[in-house]
Amino acid sequence: MTTLSPTPRSTLGRHRERAATDRRALHDVLDSTLICHLAVIRNGAPLVLPTGFGRVGDTLYVHGSTGATSLRAAADGVPVCVTVTRVDGIVYARSAFHHSMNYASAVIHGSARQVVDEVEKSLALQAIVEHLSPGSWGRTRRPNRRELAATAVLAIPLTEASVKVRTGPPVDDDADLGSGTWAGVLPVTQVWGAPEPCPLLPADVVVPQAVSGRTSSAGPPPATP
Amino acid sequence: MTTLSPTPRSTLGRHRERAATDRRALHDVLDSTLICHLAVIRNGAPLVLPTGFGRVGDTLYVHGSTGATSLRAAADGVPVCVTVTRVDGIVYARSAFHHSMNYASAVIHGSARQVVDEVEKSLALQAIVEHLSPGSWGRTRRPNRRELAATAVLAIPLTEASVKVRTGPPVDDDADLGSGTWAGVLPVTQVWGAPEPCPLLPADVVVPQAVSGRTSSAGPPPATP
Repeated sequence: MTTLSPTPRSTLGRHRERAATDRRALHDVLDSTLICHLAVIRNGAPLVLPTGFGRVGDTLYVHGSTGATSLRAAADGVPVCVTVTRVDGIVYARSAFHHSMNYASAVIHGSARQVVDEVEKSLALQAIVEHLSPGSWGRTRRPNRRELAATAVLAIPLTEASVKVRTGPPVDDDADLGSGTWAGVLPVTQVWGAPEPCPLLPADVVVPQAVSGRTSSAGPPPATP
Repeated sequence: MTTLSPTPRSTLGRHRERAATDRRALHDVLDSTLICHLAVIRNGAPLVLPTGFGRVGDTLYVHGSTGATSLRAAADGVPVCVTVTRVDGIVYARSAFHHSMNYASAVIHGSARQVVDEVEKSLALQAIVEHLSPGSWGRTRRPNRRELAATAVLAIPLTEASVKVRTGPPVDDDADLGSGTWAGVLPVTQVWGAPEPCPLLPADVVVPQAVSGRTSSAGPPPATP
């Protein structure tokens, strides 16, 4: 287990006790969260967009249309920031000030690299599809040449990152402990509903176990090639 | 109902059919989502952090410690971007390429304003606390002068924003419709668990109805003052 690169911008300034600096903590947050928020600079202003992602070892992949503004702004070598956040609960305190959330988040700094190698591009798309919908890559039609050409894939190395985790009950001022005000945590989780088949689907096509029995909030990453 | 400001950067370049330009759509996304992602530029690179927020009319408020790096970077007048995203379902298609998500997201561009007026600051904190935990503001100890001084509040006007919504089944290529591959939507929702009382709480303090009976994913905004 290697530690993450402790550059100034990836070192937490506040609540250092919430920092988790090992790589496994980073992987855990990524692998349990459906989407990320990708930030780039465009025309001198920040732009942050939600997007799916995939992880292969210590590389994060995002994809989009080759025509998408955000992916053009995140061209080779420009600085990007990718943040994933999983909210685990609301922390109700005895004072308004100490209200908080239980959560895990990862903030990744780096330069984006356009993926041009066809083998890497296919592995990246597999990781992105499997993160979104485990089991889909092996079950559905793979991208053809036209689709591959229309898809831009960016790679961001998982080397400079900070992970922050809050768990547990509220931390109130001693003077408020006797106030008789209820305090505690209200957990929140993501749950899957009943699958809704496409209206164009023949009635005899059964729902795959990977869909009807889905339990994970996001797919497991493939093994590092 | 006024439309949102259609500046070039808040006008969608792709999937224009997913744009929802009226203000109510923006309010709906904000009011049904627990957290936002706030992006600023720091030392020439983007930085995006998750944070709670509140809405009062057409103003978005975020808060943080006066010592927090992100809030210092988002000082008066600097460009910021705030994005909120609600994931509603995974769209399983017959091809890997057409996999997607059902979601609603809002991307807000603007300049941050430091809130210094004490009345506005208190209203902003009320909106933030009530968004996170409806009912808490009236039930818990209000911020004192020391806590107010330690809290920085930023206001971002809800004037330049784009809202994007995807709903419905997958959109597959005609050639794939006969493939016999299952396709459809797997809905995902956030649900509340059983409240976990603070271990320091006397056993006779009952869980408030606002906590045990919480149904909304986020609190309703207060009326515009």
